[in-house]
Amino acid sequence: MALAPFGYQQAPVSLYEVGPRDGLQNENKTVDTTHKLNYVLALIRSGLTRIEVTSFVNPKWIPQLADAEALCLQLAHALPSLAGLRLSGLVPNVKGYLRLKPTLLNEVGIVLSASSTHHQKNMNRKVEESLHEYRDLMAMAKADKRFVRAYISTAFFCPYEGAIAPSCVIDLALQLHALGADEISIGDTIGAATPYQVVHLCEQLDKQLGLADVALHFHDTKGMAIANILAGYHMGVRTFDASSGGLGGCPYAPSATGNVATEDVVYLFKGMGVYTGVDLQALCQASLSLAPLVSQSLSSHVLKSLPLI
Amino acid sequence: MALAPFGYQQAPVSLYEVGPRDGLQNENKTVDTTHKLNYVLALIRSGLTRIEVTSFVNPKWIPQLADAEALCLQLAHALPSLAGLRLSGLVPNVKGYLRLKPTLLNEVGIVLSASSTHHQKNMNRKVEESLHEYRDLMAMAKADKRFVRAYISTAFFCPYEGAIAPSCVIDLALQLHALGADEISIGDTIGAATPYQVVHLCEQLDKQLGLADVALHFHDTKGMAIANILAGYHMGVRTFDASSGGLGGCPYAPSATGNVATEDVVYLFKGMGVYTGVDLQALCQASLSLAPLVSQSLSSHVLKSLPLI
Repeated sequence: MALAPFGYQQAPVSLYEVGPRDGLQNENKTVDTTHKLNYVLALIRSGLTRIEVTSFVNPKWIPQLADAEALCLQLAHALPSLAGLRLSGLVPNVKGYLRLKPTLLNEVGIVLSASSTHHQKNMNRKVEESLHEYRDLMAMAKADKRFVRAYISTAFFCPYEGAIAPSCVIDLALQLHALGADEISIGDTIGAATPYQVVHLCEQLDKQLGLADVALHFHDTKGMAIANILAGYHMGVRTFDASSGGLGGCPYAPSATGNVATEDVVYLFKGMGVYTGVDLQALCQASLSLAPLVSQSLSSHVLKSLPLI
Repeated sequence: MALAPFGYQQAPVSLYEVGPRDGLQNENKTVDTTHKLNYVLALIRSGLTRIEVTSFVNPKWIPQLADAEALCLQLAHALPSLAGLRLSGLVPNVKGYLRLKPTLLNEVGIVLSASSTHHQKNMNRKVEESLHEYRDLMAMAKADKRFVRAYISTAFFCPYEGAIAPSCVIDLALQLHALGADEISIGDTIGAATPYQVVHLCEQLDKQLGLADVALHFHDTKGMAIANILAGYHMGVRTFDASSGGLGGCPYAPSATGNVATEDVVYLFKGMGVYTGVDLQALCQASLSLAPLVSQSLSSHVLKSLPLI
């Protein structure tokens, strides 16, 4: 049996887990800090090494994550060390970074939109204003030896502007990279991209930036996420974002699916013989433990069709 | 912009719609014949040219499709001609074919399992016994100038036997082809295959049978269907089965998804610039018209996230 069909080298991939942050930030029920802690610890036990733990936005906007500092403190007590772990917090501005600074988190995430309209509505400021503030923020994070991940959201389609030209994404990626971002996560925020677009954008990114520092962040809104991840892997991307259980909806279409489920991504790569380091059974347990605590139903196909095969 | 990334020739594809048969055969609510007729007509209006209309099994086993003859009669009255249309009925045996024979249907479908255990449980006879009866059945269909489609189900995994060796599938495909089957539809009945398996099986099929007469039939149980279709298209398959709205569940895991949704498949190919001949908006309308008449919720991602982009 050929071990590398499709031209795959079967290079291992790294999964970036966004469930605790992206999955819970729109949750109607309040998940208390201890349950969040147990969830994050269960994710770590499943073998995930990169986890976005929370966000340091103004609690007025996202009360669901108002316990950011408390959660980090509990994590610091619970974890014997951070060895091999990369735990991240999202920050919208310098003020947010100053809240993250004393915590155990060794990564920091910032967000920009490729669509200026989306950025304005999401961040309440212009792209250029955010870039200006992120310059200072990244300098501080670097001085603190923190890894910086920059999200470019609406990188394929914007709910307000429609299709986004790949050149806009490339320009922004180059600027962020020049400012010091260690990784750029390209987000299909409304989950409308198809493999054609992914291949095309990856080709351009590869030429102008290389793909070593590129991650792909897909939503499954139109059911394309797994195929898009396959296309991205085929092109050479090795880091993929996902949310355990498929936590996190699509704010633009309430009944639709949001983040691609980590279980489904692990299942894909497992079937392809690609190493993720994640124990699928343990990951399912982590997601299932959260299920009774949230109002959303978990959209992961793998979870809904348990037992595994 | 490169028009053929991924090595695609952007060859058009043909979709084989199974909603009226595979989607309704396990439905709890009885959909009356007139509603079925309107549904099939709406599917035809959306541009689908190949539709599996019903099944001629014993109504004792599948009462949902007991109106097979009545539906065909109404269709014959409603359609000015069959020009450009290929309408099919599934038959389990010669008796079923004799019921189909006087109808307008110009295609006939037969089913075998690659797993002998699954075949025995599903058909209540051995694979060899079915093959023997199908020999006579195919001869009759050929004499009547009907196109014969043969399904090989559980072609990747069987709920009883586990992983199925590609050689079992190839052997069966070659036998069916030799007996006169015009098309072989390879079914991932429990929706557990990943692109790795699809690529591998297609490579073998291509070598021993060619892919011109091969169709792929995926279920989205583990969320892999669209990625598997992408892999199959990449390998050269040009016919894909799908069910409008994602109708039809997975009998092995009641809350799980069954057939891949035609809307999602059309969305994939549309985004890739691959011609399907189907108007996605009209297809969504066809599925939505059926939604209030069935007990299952429609699993199509595209439908759940309407409007289109």
